[in-house]
Parts: sequence; C-alpha cells; structure tokens
Amino acid sequence: MIVQSAEHSIGVDIGGTKIMAALVDAEGRISDRVYRPTPRQDPVATERAIAQMVAQLSEGDPRRPVGVGAAGWMDRDGCTVLFSPHLSWRNEPVRDRLAAQIGRPVTLVNDADAAGWAEYRFGSGRGESDMVCLTLGTGIGGAVILGGQIYRGKSGIAGEFGHQCIVPGGHRCACGNRGCWEQYASGNALGREGAELVRSNSPVAHRLRQAVGDDPQRVTGALVTELAAAGDPACQDLITDMGQWLGLGISNLVSVLDPGTVVIGGGLGSASEALVATAEESYRRTLSGRGYRPFAAVQRAQLGAAAGLIGAADLARRNTGGQ
Amino acid sequence: MIVQSAEHSIGVDIGGTKIMAALVDAEGRISDRVYRPTPRQDPVATERAIAQMVAQLSEGDPRRPVGVGAAGWMDRDGCTVLFSPHLSWRNEPVRDRLAAQIGRPVTLVNDADAAGWAEYRFGSGRGESDMVCLTLGTGIGGAVILGGQIYRGKSGIAGEFGHQCIVPGGHRCACGNRGCWEQYASGNALGREGAELVRSNSPVAHRLRQAVGDDPQRVTGALVTELAAAGDPACQDLITDMGQWLGLGISNLVSVLDPGTVVIGGGLGSASEALVATAEESYRRTLSGRGYRPFAAVQRAQLGAAAGLIGAADLARRNTGGQ
Repeated sequence: MIVQSAEHSIGVDIGGTKIMAALVDAEGRISDRVYRPTPRQDPVATERAIAQMVAQLSEGDPRRPVGVGAAGWMDRDGCTVLFSPHLSWRNEPVRDRLAAQIGRPVTLVNDADAAGWAEYRFGSGRGESDMVCLTLGTGIGGAVILGGQIYRGKSGIAGEFGHQCIVPGGHRCACGNRGCWEQYASGNALGREGAELVRSNSPVAHRLRQAVGDDPQRVTGALVTELAAAGDPACQDLITDMGQWLGLGISNLVSVLDPGTVVIGGGLGSASEALVATAEESYRRTLSGRGYRPFAAVQRAQLGAAAGLIGAADLARRNTGGQ
Repeated sequence: MIVQSAEHSIGVDIGGTKIMAALVDAEGRISDRVYRPTPRQDPVATERAIAQMVAQLSEGDPRRPVGVGAAGWMDRDGCTVLFSPHLSWRNEPVRDRLAAQIGRPVTLVNDADAAGWAEYRFGSGRGESDMVCLTLGTGIGGAVILGGQIYRGKSGIAGEFGHQCIVPGGHRCACGNRGCWEQYASGNALGREGAELVRSNSPVAHRLRQAVGDDPQRVTGALVTELAAAGDPACQDLITDMGQWLGLGISNLVSVLDPGTVVIGGGLGSASEALVATAEESYRRTLSGRGYRPFAAVQRAQLGAAAGLIGAADLARRNTGGQ
C-alpha cells in the first residue's frame, strides 16, 4: 500500500486490555490497524510496545505525526500524565519519554477527549461547535468541545462527567467517593445490577441466571446488553433503569454546558440503541426549563471503537501543522 | 460631579424587588447610584423605568454605553429574553426595545453572568482565565468564564448550575423538577429548613422560634444567617448542612469544568463566611481524584450587591469598543 506523508498520521489508543494503532488519513479513515495486549501495570513495557507499533506503521514515511490516547489525566499541555488508572503512571512526563523512544514529537491526549474529537471532526458531531461526548464503557469518559476546540480546563482535567455525584450516599465508586454517575450508568454498573438480580433469585432473572449458570460473578454489562437485545424482559428493564440515570446526568450536563449536541459512544453506547433512546427520553423529561429553551440533540456516536485513535491521529496532524 | 464619557458607562441591574443603576468607571468603581422598585409582572413599566434611570445617569453625556443585567435566559447574542422569572418576558426582543426607548445600543446580559464578569474583571477572579461564579440568593445563579470570556453555550443558557439534580426525587423546585441543587443550597432552602425546624417544635429551635413568634412562615434565609452569626447553634447547624450541599455541588461543577477558581457571591454568599468555609471543606472532601489533581480555589466574592450592574456596565463598555 502506497501512502503519502501529507495524508496520514498515526493514532494509538491504549486501552485497559489492548493497545490499538493505525494509520488515519485526513478524512478520518483508518488502515493498517495493529494490536498488542496492554502490559498492565508496566508503563515501561507499554511505552516500548507503542514505539514498536509506531515504527511498524511508519514504514514508508518516518515523519508521520503520532497521536496517543490514553485513559488518565493529562496536564493542560498534554505533557505529563497526572494519573492513569490502568498503567500506574503517576505524575510522569510520558509525552517526552514516548517522543524520545519514537524519535519524533508525540501528541498525548486523554482517550475520551480523543474519541470526542473524532466524533466532532468525522462523526455525529460534525458541524457542531459546542458538543459533549460521553464514552460509555466500564465507566463514563467525557469530552467537552466548545467553539470547535477541546476544552481541557485549568489543569487539563475537565470533562470528568462520570464522577459527578448523582446519588448522595449511593454506590461506592472506584474513585473512592459514593454516588458517582458512572456507578449508575456504565458497563460496570449494568454488570453489578445484573449480578444482584441473579443473587436475588427472582423468577424474572430466569434467563440471566441460566446464561451464567447461576453464578452472579459471571454477569457482565455486555451480557446484559446482549440478552436485552435478544428480548429478555429482565435485562431490558435493567437497560431502561440505566437509561433513566443516563438521561438525568445528561440533563445536569446540559444545564451547566448548554451544548448543541450530546454524543453517546463507547462500547455500551454503541451496543444498545435502547439505552440511548431511553436516555434521551429521560433527558427530555428532566431538563430544567424545558419548554422555554431548545433541547440539545442526543446522538449515538458513529465511529465505534476506533474513535479514540482516529481523534488522537487527527490532533497529532493538526499539532504538526496539517489540517 | 464632572465625568468623562470615555471613563463611564451605565450599569443597570433588574432585581426581583428593585432596579438599581449607576455610573461605573473603567476600574469598576461606581458612583451616582439610583434605585426604583421593580414593576413586577409588568415588562412595559419596567422598560420605561429603566429608560428614565438611564436618562438620569446620562446627564452630561448622552453617549455613555448602557449594560442591563436581568434574571432570565437570553439567547446567545443577548438580543432576546427567552424566559424571565420575575418579569413575564417570554421570548421577547427586549434588547432592541430597550435600545429604542433609550435611544442608543444596549448590552443585555443575564444577571449572574454580569456578576461573574465583574468578579472576573475587578473582584475575586482577577487574573483567573477559567472561573466559575455562583450567585447565592433566593436560588443559585451561575456564570462560566472560560479563557477570559463568558461562556454562554449554544443557546445562551449555560451555567444553570442551580438546576443540576443533586438529590433524585428530592425537594420540588420552582422549575418543576425535583432535587435541584438550589433546593439544598440557597436562601430559599435555608428559609424552608428553618421553617421546618420551627414546626418541629424541637427544643433546639428555641431561639429561632422566639425570633419569629412561633410562626414558621416568618422564617427567612436572612434570619437564619443572622441568628447563626449571632451564635445560635441550631441555625449554625442549618448553615453547616447547607455548606455541605454547596460543597458537593461545587465538586460536581469542578469535575465537569475544572476551573482555577470558584467564586461564591450573592446575598447569602456574602452574608455567611461560615457557609463558604463549610462549602470549601465539603468540596475538598468530595472532589473526585483529590490527591492526584490540584484543587480549584474557593473564594468569596468581593463586589457585593453591585456586582451585577458593574459587570453589565463593563460589558457594555467593551461592546462599544472601550477596554
């Protein structure tokens, strides 16, 4: 495959289980996708793996811009990772270390910001200057696009939507607090609710119990989503409950940010049309001032699991002067 | 008094009970303050009163820029009032009507945005590019300053912090929803809690009951604040409770917006140092990711009740080319 340097940049997405990288052209189309398992809790091995993947994708043109999306908090300049849940990065100058290994500048960006940027540039948010993007996976990732720019906040940590407290004294969150939104609307939350339903021994959980051999620990959000899509009423109810929480949190975000569009992506957002439909219904019923203001549109994301690397690649291209 | 046109603009603040107007110089200092009662539910009389006050303050120079702050939702351009709680303006071209009456261009702005802008320019937010301002009065007004600009959102309604749902199924709000933040942290909320305490006949409410002659309807937020400051333990507890809710909501805002400073103003914010101190404590205990990120500063507002008109005047000066 012959590619031109002006057209392609390299996007990398470091997930909890795998690192994914690809070439991305100026229209957000990807090619030459490569994968590696994420060396968990081993930042050095992770950085080495990224450098190798980038080298592989640089064959033919070693100047291709490189963008890396990772879960975690970057400072405002995208230089230092303040905190990363999967990779044990704590206040480390990851960008410059990666750049030294790779041998060219690197654009480092929060993975949810990268995914939101991709949806803004090439997906559901095209043409929308003020947009919020939710990445529903194990938790909730958030991106804020204002005036056609990613808004990162004073210290680079804006958009931590998943940790708005929505139920004071509610479920304990992985962040240490109680009642965070992502404990009520995420893949993990859906798995927890499904597991509780299995434990309840309720007759309505018949099909779910059967699917996991009566073992609540085997329930996942993905399974609940799948059974709901296949018509199981109990799992459909769990999706509806979650959609209502999702809608309530969206109302809160819209009250604060007043975006034109709310894009819902991530594994869970992509998997369940019913979830997004219920969330929109709930949002429209709970937005304060409804009737006296326009509703922000609620849209499903379009770019799927590659959104993060597409956005990282596009941001890298822009940082090196491309459009 | 001799004033120069280049130095002064006219700020107007339309409150629920009174309209306040004054001359404001380029440093945010006010002079020649004038008042009138607000003709409630009568927009025509309100507009006439504003025009008369502006005429009075224009003696000596009929070209002074005019800025008007009002409770309510303006569209993004500050042209149309979409909804105003006190004045029955509903989707009306207020800015141009006022301009026609006054005989010169008018800058129309949400009162909380105006107050936040004043704090950013001349008060607690000086030098802070990313700032959130809460105006605690009967409810919660909000302003978002990002990159040194008021952020108004897609339709002009950003910053409606008071209506983030913080207690699902909680107290009914004047907006029609349940559990809005301003039902837990505002002058009205404080009055409601005080009245409930009087009704409870609890011995701890002794002093509060005495102050209102056992009539719960006479309890106001201002009275509770005053008794708390005078040392009444029951009213101090109410302030502490409210400070905790205030802090929790601030954590939510900081999770989303990551500002450098949160400024707390309004009648209640100015009146109770204890409230703001408790809010900051609660915020520092509930912010997600504390320990891995800097804390936004929490500051009391500096400009008092005139903040709204100072901000409106300053925005008007800028809109007409002044600095």
